[in-house]
Amino acid sequence: MLKEIVVGIDIGGTNVVAGFVTIEGKILQTIHHPVKQFETPELLANTFSEEIIFVCKKNNWVLKGIGIGAPNGNYFNGTIEFAPNLPWRGIIPLAQLFATKCNTTAILTNDANAAAIGEMIFGAAKGMKDFLMITLGTGLGSGIVANGELIYGHDGFAGEVGHTIAVKNGRACGCGRKGCLETYASATGIAKTVVQWLNEGQESVLKNIPAEKINSYKIYEAALQQDKLALKAFRFTAEILGESLANAVAYTSPQAIILFGGLANAGEFLVQQIQFFMEENLLQIYKGKVKIMLSQLPESDAAILGAASLIWKKFKN
Amino acid sequence: MLKEIVVGIDIGGTNVVAGFVTIEGKILQTIHHPVKQFETPELLANTFSEEIIFVCKKNNWVLKGIGIGAPNGNYFNGTIEFAPNLPWRGIIPLAQLFATKCNTTAILTNDANAAAIGEMIFGAAKGMKDFLMITLGTGLGSGIVANGELIYGHDGFAGEVGHTIAVKNGRACGCGRKGCLETYASATGIAKTVVQWLNEGQESVLKNIPAEKINSYKIYEAALQQDKLALKAFRFTAEILGESLANAVAYTSPQAIILFGGLANAGEFLVQQIQFFMEENLLQIYKGKVKIMLSQLPESDAAILGAASLIWKKFKN
Repeated sequence: MLKEIVVGIDIGGTNVVAGFVTIEGKILQTIHHPVKQFETPELLANTFSEEIIFVCKKNNWVLKGIGIGAPNGNYFNGTIEFAPNLPWRGIIPLAQLFATKCNTTAILTNDANAAAIGEMIFGAAKGMKDFLMITLGTGLGSGIVANGELIYGHDGFAGEVGHTIAVKNGRACGCGRKGCLETYASATGIAKTVVQWLNEGQESVLKNIPAEKINSYKIYEAALQQDKLALKAFRFTAEILGESLANAVAYTSPQAIILFGGLANAGEFLVQQIQFFMEENLLQIYKGKVKIMLSQLPESDAAILGAASLIWKKFKN
Repeated sequence: MLKEIVVGIDIGGTNVVAGFVTIEGKILQTIHHPVKQFETPELLANTFSEEIIFVCKKNNWVLKGIGIGAPNGNYFNGTIEFAPNLPWRGIIPLAQLFATKCNTTAILTNDANAAAIGEMIFGAAKGMKDFLMITLGTGLGSGIVANGELIYGHDGFAGEVGHTIAVKNGRACGCGRKGCLETYASATGIAKTVVQWLNEGQESVLKNIPAEKINSYKIYEAALQQDKLALKAFRFTAEILGESLANAVAYTSPQAIILFGGLANAGEFLVQQIQFFMEENLLQIYKGKVKIMLSQLPESDAAILGAASLIWKKFKN
């Protein structure tokens, strides 16, 4: 019998990954490309579509549809709109491009929303009806689940916690405003913090690395060596994120906040401190009720499984 | 035939109002008492229950249940918990008190949640699936509707936008923290602003009024006379609220934000300015999409109708 599969595509600020996912949530194979490889979204859709069709044919798989998670993804329109962390401007009808190229159903949503669905079905949020997904990658993405449903909002764009203002008149953000949470609390944000402090002459094992090569992983390694500046950077990041999450709790009062993505891998330096600073700033009625957790899915699987489940859910309903 | 009615009770920071509501949403009669009249919540439940039973008997009405809207109201437990703007401390099982005294069903929720339900069924939010209700009274309350459902959160306490931090290390709040939105954007908040500016020696027609007598209505009257300080106070309040609402939009992306309560009555000085400052601070993708509106229900009716609809909805389901 021919095997039915769904392709889940995760479009991040750095990489694009497509996974071939069974109805049981098993990822059989993946395709990776750096996002900067594609000058236009049409080129991305062309390359991936050709490879998807090739892989399906080779394995005798029947393609049931394509689910896409992307920054600033609009669920209702299937578009990516004004994404500050992607190389393409304006409104991009990516679901339509894939649907046409692959002659199949394509559904698109915010990458963090896709991660939230993946986590709800296969990961740390199994059985939860109210939780917040925070992805700490190139930017800070968020997916909000309340009453057991993902919140898309009136226009399909709900859940941009990374673009709430964390520091008034703070750092310039890719979105054109200042002080957005993601300019501090993301893999890119913590690197900006460290570079700024090094430029101010603060001591660190990181000071011999060129500024453009400092990233969250190098800061994590320095923190493992007890580098004071690196440890202070995690504390500073956790403080800003904890304060913002205390505000976030006042909106939807979630059972848990699940962290995911590049920066979340530095779990040991982050989770406890974020929990501490969030608790410090929580309104009395919320204290001690909201658990900060790490994703229970291997990195990038949550987004792929979430994107794929957009399609599988459609067939199950 | 005996007429069936539901009592909707609105517990505000200043007044408690009970309304006798028909299934068509008509308020047949109301009972009012200042909240400070009741040293304990038991006394409040006793007084209102006796009057409710008396009025029902006199009119041959059958009491089908009591719905209560209260600050820090917990829908799941029927309790008021640690409400900073009420005279009673701790956890108060008010739904249980009313259920016992009146021998009927009693359901309790956040007063702003009750207002949101009232607005959704009878008012400005008819037919909307995603909107935000903001009550500008003694404090700032909020009710969030997403996917057509009120968000209660994991613990029943979702929707405390008044206790998100608007100004870091700002004004002391009744909740024990600093800079909460409601210390600026509420009837009490704008009075604090004006008193502070008068103490700094700024000129105004309000300067001859004792500080404790300055309230949002007197500031509104002064603004009608083009008093510069009063106009500036509305602008300042609108700026802080607009900034915070721009953040709020990034959570649930509502179709509209509906303003209600004492301060919202100064609509002409507030709505346009709040819309302006919100737009200024919105992320690109939300610009021009979210309408600031005034409640379309007479003051206090929304809360009573919303509280009553908690019960009527139960019978309809």
